[in-house]
Amino acid sequence: MSELLWDEPTFIGKLREVGAGIYHDKHPFHVVMNEGRLSPQAIRGWVANRFYYQINIPIKDAALLSNCPLRDVRRIWIDRIIEHDGREGNEGGIEAWLRLGDACGLSRADLLDSRNVIPAVRFAVDAYVTFARTQPWPVAVASSLTELFAPDLMAKRLEAFKTHYSWVQPWGFDYFSRRVTQARKESDYALKLTLTHCNTPALQKAAVDALVFKCEVLWAILDGIAGKFPPTPPTT
Amino acid sequence: MSELLWDEPTFIGKLREVGAGIYHDKHPFHVVMNEGRLSPQAIRGWVANRFYYQINIPIKDAALLSNCPLRDVRRIWIDRIIEHDGREGNEGGIEAWLRLGDACGLSRADLLDSRNVIPAVRFAVDAYVTFARTQPWPVAVASSLTELFAPDLMAKRLEAFKTHYSWVQPWGFDYFSRRVTQARKESDYALKLTLTHCNTPALQKAAVDALVFKCEVLWAILDGIAGKFPPTPPTT
Repeated sequence: MSELLWDEPTFIGKLREVGAGIYHDKHPFHVVMNEGRLSPQAIRGWVANRFYYQINIPIKDAALLSNCPLRDVRRIWIDRIIEHDGREGNEGGIEAWLRLGDACGLSRADLLDSRNVIPAVRFAVDAYVTFARTQPWPVAVASSLTELFAPDLMAKRLEAFKTHYSWVQPWGFDYFSRRVTQARKESDYALKLTLTHCNTPALQKAAVDALVFKCEVLWAILDGIAGKFPPTPPTT
Repeated sequence: MSELLWDEPTFIGKLREVGAGIYHDKHPFHVVMNEGRLSPQAIRGWVANRFYYQINIPIKDAALLSNCPLRDVRRIWIDRIIEHDGREGNEGGIEAWLRLGDACGLSRADLLDSRNVIPAVRFAVDAYVTFARTQPWPVAVASSLTELFAPDLMAKRLEAFKTHYSWVQPWGFDYFSRRVTQARKESDYALKLTLTHCNTPALQKAAVDALVFKCEVLWAILDGIAGKFPPTPPTT
């Protein structure tokens, strides 16, 4: 019977366990990517498909905003949309990802035309947006907590790209660099909100499930990409 | 058969006709309010119930944002949320309405507790939020075009309050003053979006219907308030 409210360390422990278990840094495609074993075509496929996730993040965050009756929370959460969409004089995360595409030899048109997005990727990303539209906002907040695990992944990815994919123009990596610090700041706040507003046993459980769901979304994205761009065998 | 695309002047004419016909400046409650014939209790009732509309505007705009795939549009539309919710060092429209309440002798708690909102008001406002969640975003944009008619109404209301309701502290009127210019700026952009993106006969028709619907929302709000706070008979 798990009818009792977890204390804060227990709750945080349950959330962190999810990341330790199934965060997508452990997906075979991701492992192979960091080992430097992806072809330029596979890297481009990853960048182009992952872009579909990027462009849906502000949509997801606006859905969450629209479900949140607390003005003080909205005042802070809205920065995520601005961080991604940008404003006059601040390019924003989507633009940074377009530059990453450019650095890989993909045109803006290649990225912006989402007709070629792999179906498995589309379904996974759309499921995430639907989740944010339909779940209580504190549960949607909890689903963003993969950002707790993102800074490590970003730092390692940045190293891997610089080491193994020197054909990618280094000025393309701004997105990764900006996320290292940004993800930390955002996840601190999201964790605080989760701990405060997921304040019943049912909501705590829903928060952990939301984080599992979000890890599944990220995992399914890589499944789709790996299916279309299988890694080359190791050259031992 | 209205299967042809209206040219721009015709389309604008149809939209303006809606305002001329059924905008809530013509509602009996509103007429009586501007004539100075409302009791303090009725003015307070109007301020408190209308607040439920105010606090739902950012929710509505976030829903629209979440349905809009165009980053350039989102970058501008997001300012409406900030305009209402405010940010650090910028109080925002909701806060200004709270000050109006204070100037009428209503505490923040009175306004923030929405348990006393008149059911007809709640249903009307909730219908507006649902509309923005479920309609195509350009149609939701069109529903905001009551702002085309707002500056006139605000200017007249400001005069009426200063003339007839001198018991209301004048520092409470910031909300009205800020909306005179803000509504003009916002409706210019919303009209431009409507003309550009409601670009089929069906969408043009939907835009006009959306504006009718929005006028009905505003009208129903006043119906509810008038039902609970009937105007005193004229003292002729």
